[in-house]
Amino acid sequence: MTEANRTQTYPARPDGRSDDALRPTVFVRRYTKYAEGSVLVCAGDTKVICTASVEAGVPPFLRGRGEGWVTAEYGLLPRATGTRCDREAARGKQTGRTQEIQRLIGRSLRAVVDRKKLGEFTIKIDCDVIQADGGTRCASITGAWVALRDAVTGMLEKGDITEDPILAQVSAVSVGVSNGRPVLDLNYVEDSSSDTDMNVVMTSEGKFVEIQGTAEGVPFSEEELAALLALAKRGNLELARLQREALAAPL
Amino acid sequence: MTEANRTQTYPARPDGRSDDALRPTVFVRRYTKYAEGSVLVCAGDTKVICTASVEAGVPPFLRGRGEGWVTAEYGLLPRATGTRCDREAARGKQTGRTQEIQRLIGRSLRAVVDRKKLGEFTIKIDCDVIQADGGTRCASITGAWVALRDAVTGMLEKGDITEDPILAQVSAVSVGVSNGRPVLDLNYVEDSSSDTDMNVVMTSEGKFVEIQGTAEGVPFSEEELAALLALAKRGNLELARLQREALAAPL
Amino acid sequence: MTEANRTQTYPARPDGRSDDALRPTVFVRRYTKYAEGSVLVCAGDTKVICTASVEAGVPPFLRGRGEGWVTAEYGLLPRATGTRCDREAARGKQTGRTQEIQRLIGRSLRAVVDRKKLGEFTIKIDCDVIQADGGTRCASITGAWVALRDAVTGMLEKGDITEDPILAQVSAVSVGVSNGRPVLDLNYVEDSSSDTDMNVVMTSEGKFVEIQGTAEGVPFSEEELAALLALAKRGNLELARLQREALAAPL
Amino acid sequence: MTEANRTQTYPARPDGRSDDALRPTVFVRRYTKYAEGSVLVCAGDTKVICTASVEAGVPPFLRGRGEGWVTAEYGLLPRATGTRCDREAARGKQTGRTQEIQRLIGRSLRAVVDRKKLGEFTIKIDCDVIQADGGTRCASITGAWVALRDAVTGMLEKGDITEDPILAQVSAVSVGVSNGRPVLDLNYVEDSSSDTDMNVVMTSEGKFVEIQGTAEGVPFSEEELAALLALAKRGNLELARLQREALAAPL
Amino acid sequence: MTEANRTQTYPARPDGRSDDALRPTVFVRRYTKYAEGSVLVCAGDTKVICTASVEAGVPPFLRGRGEGWVTAEYGLLPRATGTRCDREAARGKQTGRTQEIQRLIGRSLRAVVDRKKLGEFTIKIDCDVIQADGGTRCASITGAWVALRDAVTGMLEKGDITEDPILAQVSAVSVGVSNGRPVLDLNYVEDSSSDTDMNVVMTSEGKFVEIQGTAEGVPFSEEELAALLALAKRGNLELARLQREALAAPL
Amino acid sequence: MTEANRTQTYPARPDGRSDDALRPTVFVRRYTKYAEGSVLVCAGDTKVICTASVEAGVPPFLRGRGEGWVTAEYGLLPRATGTRCDREAARGKQTGRTQEIQRLIGRSLRAVVDRKKLGEFTIKIDCDVIQADGGTRCASITGAWVALRDAVTGMLEKGDITEDPILAQVSAVSVGVSNGRPVLDLNYVEDSSSDTDMNVVMTSEGKFVEIQGTAEGVPFSEEELAALLALAKRGNLELARLQREALAAPL
Repeated sequence: MTEANRTQTYPARPDGRSDDALRPTVFVRRYTKYAEGSVLVCAGDTKVICTASVEAGVPPFLRGRGEGWVTAEYGLLPRATGTRCDREAARGKQTGRTQEIQRLIGRSLRAVVDRKKLGEFTIKIDCDVIQADGGTRCASITGAWVALRDAVTGMLEKGDITEDPILAQVSAVSVGVSNGRPVLDLNYVEDSSSDTDMNVVMTSEGKFVEIQGTAEGVPFSEEELAALLALAKRGNLELARLQREALAAPL
Repeated sequence: MTEANRTQTYPARPDGRSDDALRPTVFVRRYTKYAEGSVLVCAGDTKVICTASVEAGVPPFLRGRGEGWVTAEYGLLPRATGTRCDREAARGKQTGRTQEIQRLIGRSLRAVVDRKKLGEFTIKIDCDVIQADGGTRCASITGAWVALRDAVTGMLEKGDITEDPILAQVSAVSVGVSNGRPVLDLNYVEDSSSDTDMNVVMTSEGKFVEIQGTAEGVPFSEEELAALLALAKRGNLELARLQREALAAPL
Repeated sequence: MTEANRTQTYPARPDGRSDDALRPTVFVRRYTKYAEGSVLVCAGDTKVICTASVEAGVPPFLRGRGEGWVTAEYGLLPRATGTRCDREAARGKQTGRTQEIQRLIGRSLRAVVDRKKLGEFTIKIDCDVIQADGGTRCASITGAWVALRDAVTGMLEKGDITEDPILAQVSAVSVGVSNGRPVLDLNYVEDSSSDTDMNVVMTSEGKFVEIQGTAEGVPFSEEELAALLALAKRGNLELARLQREALAAPL
Repeated sequence: MTEANRTQTYPARPDGRSDDALRPTVFVRRYTKYAEGSVLVCAGDTKVICTASVEAGVPPFLRGRGEGWVTAEYGLLPRATGTRCDREAARGKQTGRTQEIQRLIGRSLRAVVDRKKLGEFTIKIDCDVIQADGGTRCASITGAWVALRDAVTGMLEKGDITEDPILAQVSAVSVGVSNGRPVLDLNYVEDSSSDTDMNVVMTSEGKFVEIQGTAEGVPFSEEELAALLALAKRGNLELARLQREALAAPL
Repeated sequence: MTEANRTQTYPARPDGRSDDALRPTVFVRRYTKYAEGSVLVCAGDTKVICTASVEAGVPPFLRGRGEGWVTAEYGLLPRATGTRCDREAARGKQTGRTQEIQRLIGRSLRAVVDRKKLGEFTIKIDCDVIQADGGTRCASITGAWVALRDAVTGMLEKGDITEDPILAQVSAVSVGVSNGRPVLDLNYVEDSSSDTDMNVVMTSEGKFVEIQGTAEGVPFSEEELAALLALAKRGNLELARLQREALAAPL
Repeated sequence: MTEANRTQTYPARPDGRSDDALRPTVFVRRYTKYAEGSVLVCAGDTKVICTASVEAGVPPFLRGRGEGWVTAEYGLLPRATGTRCDREAARGKQTGRTQEIQRLIGRSLRAVVDRKKLGEFTIKIDCDVIQADGGTRCASITGAWVALRDAVTGMLEKGDITEDPILAQVSAVSVGVSNGRPVLDLNYVEDSSSDTDMNVVMTSEGKFVEIQGTAEGVPFSEEELAALLALAKRGNLELARLQREALAAPL
């Protein structure tokens, strides 16, 4: 996708980005003071607080194996969205969507952690969306990895563990077909009107961890799939670079 | 994947199938007597009762638009599995896995339905697994489509609707990397030990409706992804053929 | 009740049976492959999958006493009935009716088990109705006993236990006053219109385990009660014979 | 059962009653001031507050039919029993036992109400046990009928309805086999050690409304059943007399 | 507030009391037979059963510290009020109001208990309102203390503990501004129309344990606050005297 | 409390403040982009996002009266605290503490709103604590009022309403006895060790809206109460000034 594309007659993206451009993505580390890792991630107007809490011990199904556990929970402040949505705590249960997302975040992080090296510790990731403008699950994964990295670095410094259990970076980005064109990192307006929506989780080595693609209305062809996967790879490699930059900055 | 592969030294699949072979898949239509569509689908030892219930009216968010709705619920009998799992009704809530699966089934079916032509009717699909040997969500989708087809045919015959709202067939199959080789339609033993697990939902025209791929442990490469997608396409086209065969048989 | 009765002017029963006839009742053993006991019981169009799952250990209130436990759960597939009923797992709780039935099944089976001889094992019975045409709780008990028998025989063969803890057969049948006449084993149509409905659980020795009689509308007299109990005894002795026949068949 | 029996060598009942004697049973009408009917019923040390609340309107399933509804709820104060039991409101759900009992109370009262004559009113009965010494469900039914009677009399006096919808009295009593002898109206100690426990709900005309008999351990014979039913009839006729006496007293 | 006030032209209180008069308040000890302490407290038409249940052991967060625990639960019978309110057990959760009240009762009692002297015992207080005419939370605290006193005296007599852990009496009363005048111990009618409502929990030594004041509509001034606190002190000292009188009576 | 006090031998407060000093308190308006009012309030290290969402219509109990409604919900991100607390949405219910706080916030705001002038609109306040260092309920009220003010100003500008329904400012602050001295605006460390804790909600005119005082351990005297109320008044008047300053700044 070259600069030329944007000067064609295609309608511009709502925020003027080129089809293969990420939204401005920023990581604010040590965003809150108590968590072992705490990151505010902003992907355009999507803003998520990601914290990593380290606790000694593991869930019952893992006890005595000398392995650790990484798990995640996800939430949306009621007015993170254009119309207020019900508070899940007040409704008394998490929606299917919430559970699906938090399972995805947990799996994605575990895919880049050597749980043997983590020892019998549990790291709980909380991703709380304070403003939602599309792509909250992807931003959660990308930000959560930075929080996890900070928490694990702290464990190494304190001597809780001796070997680094993190095998690679992991990040996620959405791609979709909007106005008939494959585009990267859709915001809410694009997402709502796209025909296909795909979330792609990749390692910093360019390998796939998760692919979740859904035809919203119109099933998609093998060619469209290939174009989307290429965009996703490009986006994830850029996100991995931004994660490294954020971590290189002094705290 | 040619015949030659199977004669090599690779370890055979647990049930002796070739890497690109589906399990024997059978549809028993009119399996129960009350539902407008009722199908027992058996994919090897995985057995799912799929019913389609037609109800006048639509959920509140659709009222007055002249469109219909298709939704799904999924359940597992407690002893459908090797070890008894808790009954969700007794636990008081559906697991995240259950909700994820039923949302997938619903989306997959809606992708091949023109809801305008369905009018203000709701079709509720129930997929209840009575024996689980891997691939229950895929078998559910594949069987549910046949139940939906029977229910919609009934609506057309009764005159509830005048135009067929079903746009295409839809089916699903799992693919994965097992013992280092991409294989089609994994049973439970293969699924438990596979490195990558992907569920692919396709239309009978070979287009993608959903792709859900997860690296269980080891992230996967673009090459592996391509091989898996090819297998999935082959499997889904075969399933579509079997669906047509089942429907061609007299009731 | 003689043959002559049926030739009188009384309206025939909906399915043409004599007043004292059971519906055709069939047991399919080893219906599913994982459970230690697994039986599909069909009483006319009522079809219930009954599984018996053997687990080491007992609930907390029994620990350390050297006794076992037998308990039951009951469910109805959403479209087992003429009109789809809500899935209890989705509603988040079991209805009072469901709980009442599963408590009845559990008590009925425990009445014929010597829990000392069972040792510290728990047998969980699951009765899942896939098609409901009246009498589901009775069919569940009758079928569950066969599943229990198969599971316990397996325990004896494996050497988990050394003495047979099953003291007698147990079965259940409904009786009621329909069109002014006492009848045996009511189907859904008869049950809906009957004045009195009674479920009688008996041992193969003709003793009572449970009697649950309800006047639906019109209280009943001592004479009617006596007639109903006689029919129930006749039905249960026949069911006990059918249970023995099913168990005598090779698996 | 004659006086002679009691002078034999049989062990006396814990409270010295003859086998066919009720516990002292008292009804305190207008026990609380707000409810349309409000009765404290004491059967020995079992004490239940029964209130009848009249509300205009009926549940959705009855709307527009011109019929009324009678329903019941049951609860046990946490320390109504020897050992404190958990508060159901705090646990977040009613036990199966509670639901079974409240369904029984509701059915028993509806059996003696002509719901057409009640018009579109709902009467909600609340039975709250403040002290439990066996037989709480039976005392609830017997007391609830008196509260219902007072509430309905009030409706007739106010002109809400013009014809009395109450067809008969209804009461309930437990019978059981204790120390090998059939006995009437078991208290907690007897109930805990009895082999058979039966709750019998009857009208003042001596007809049966509900029979719920359970073999606790040893299945029972037809002879035992006959003896128990005779005792229950005697007890219920006596309870009906006591209800009439209570209602005859000025308020 | 002098006698003169009451002879002025101000509208009398609904029940004719002077502004600084408590409702008639009575304690019935040993109201039920099982609980270690059991008191029916009547404050005018407000009637609450307060029981104290002694259990060995403490909740997990206190284990091994050698301290005891005192906690409380609160409930309202459905028809304790003018209009029937839903049963919390049936709704499946306690309202915010209920939880707020039971937390208040627990804190108030713990404020006068030396938990070290109580040893590793838990005392559970249940306050169940059988008739509500305003001030139920205050009557609950006042009555609960008497039940606690009886239960603790029993523990001392049995030798469960050797030193009295109760440091002082505690009681509670409501005050409010009604018809523009500060009044003591509001009944339901006064409470519903008052501008300010304050519940004041005090020890028998005239010290404050809890103050919960709420402006219902019109915020209140420092002067009004002073007048209300003076009334509350007067009422609580009188309640403490009545508690002592009740305890002085032989059981 | 004069400057002299702080130079005495009393131990300094943990953060060096004088006993009568507020923590630095900051309001960030338009903190998120969707809500009609959105304020981040920071009181020292306590940080709360307060949003006000305007919705047409009122709850059922108010319909047709021409009045509006203001209500509040409160939540704590799981790692807002030193030790991670369970997510309420995952636990399936809100704690008693949460419900108590959100009821307090709602009442406090309604006390300064003329609901007639609000018309049939509902304003929902969400207070979500992202970092908790004591005083979260007070900061929530103080911040929520600013969000409410912004939302109502917006309604006036849009013409939804014509008269300003806000009657006064409202704010809240905690006071307590720490190390034997009355202090203002306790942080978490002080709060945990204080003997008395009081939350005081006041209007900008110096009137009381709510007083919630609790003796944590040692009951408090009238003199201590007077000192605490004086501090609370001072703090609230300062908070009201800060609210006005924040609102005077251009957005």
